Amino acid sequence: MGRPRQPILSVDKIATAALRLVDEGHDLRMGDVAAALGVRPSSLYNHVSGKADVVEAMRGLIFHDVPRSVDTGADASGWEGRLRSLLRRYRESFARHPRVIPLLTAQTVSAPSVMAMYDELATVLVGCGVPESRLLDVVTVLDSFVIGSALDVAAPDDVWDSSAATTDHLRRAIDASPRGRERADQAFELGVELLVAGIASSTA
Amino acid sequence: MGRPRQPILSVDKIATAALRLVDEGHDLRMGDVAAALGVRPSSLYNHVSGKADVVEAMRGLIFHDVPRSVDTGADASGWEGRLRSLLRRYRESFARHPRVIPLLTAQTVSAPSVMAMYDELATVLVGCGVPESRLLDVVTVLDSFVIGSALDVAAPDDVWDSSAATTDHLRRAIDASPRGRERADQAFELGVELLVAGIASSTA
Repeated sequence: MGRPRQPILSVDKIATAALRLVDEGHDLRMGDVAAALGVRPSSLYNHVSGKADVVEAMRGLIFHDVPRSVDTGADASGWEGRLRSLLRRYRESFARHPRVIPLLTAQTVSAPSVMAMYDELATVLVGCGVPESRLLDVVTVLDSFVIGSALDVAAPDDVWDSSAATTDHLRRAIDASPRGRERADQAFELGVELLVAGIASSTA
Repeated sequence: MGRPRQPILSVDKIATAALRLVDEGHDLRMGDVAAALGVRPSSLYNHVSGKADVVEAMRGLIFHDVPRSVDTGADASGWEGRLRSLLRRYRESFARHPRVIPLLTAQTVSAPSVMAMYDELATVLVGCGVPESRLLDVVTVLDSFVIGSALDVAAPDDVWDSSAATTDHLRRAIDASPRGRERADQAFELGVELLVAGIASSTA
């Protein structure tokens, strides 16, 4: 009986351990990631150059983890359907890991699988008539909406205290609203429709 | 010469100290807020019932701190102008304190000054023909877009690494984009226009 074999490390294993730590509410520290994997911190550096590398690997992982089947709605044809489908998949990937969002938005995107999603998004938008000069702005708008919507999924059951509303419309609307995930999903789908309509009217 | 007088505490002073701590990257802990104010933790509880109370006071504070003049663009008339104006002011308040966003989205909104903003938003949307049954969904869409856009203000100068793009459109668009605050502002204004157009076409 020799001593236990060193677990085989990989970028993917490191990203998975880091994701679990952040999901549980911990800060991302290389020492904690190493401890979670039962290795010395120095071993991590055979696979990643530092924390930024780990965050990029986490970005790739959370997007990869959402199966393509999430996004194939009945309307997933034509450019509008492809756009809806991409936005749903992208939001779902963030919504599963809301605590990771601040790490991801603080860092330049370079993970190949995530850039591939942006390439696809850009191709869909160009196909629907968005000029290249506005392309990055439209991508940013969709990004901001998706990230805000992913945070909204993690919002409390009561987003607003209706007793603090002073107008009847708002108080009644809060009281009549569905709750939890149903509320978040319904609003997200409306936002997708408003943005698709806005893009269509701006390129018409 | 007696001993130094106890500083006069108030909810506002507590929220201001808490906001500074979170802006600097610290977690929000009542003990740290008390230490920053040079008082015992128990003194805080004469003014607030706990952390949730402090977060609500911070919510009120950050919105109050953005002067109304931020939002009076040339187009601040009519319902569309009022809507643009509210969204700009709301985004600016969050953009100044991006680290506070996760605390705010995790808790039911009840701060009176912030609920007053939602009341105004609801009134503007009803005035432009949004039916009460969709009101909360539209408010949520705007909220998600504003929060995502506020996080985008804090994004790094290079949001995407253009060398990781595989399509020419995306690579050229990234390379041609303005940087920093100009990039974020331009995208935000486009998003406001797309959403206003989407709302207008959905209520037409």
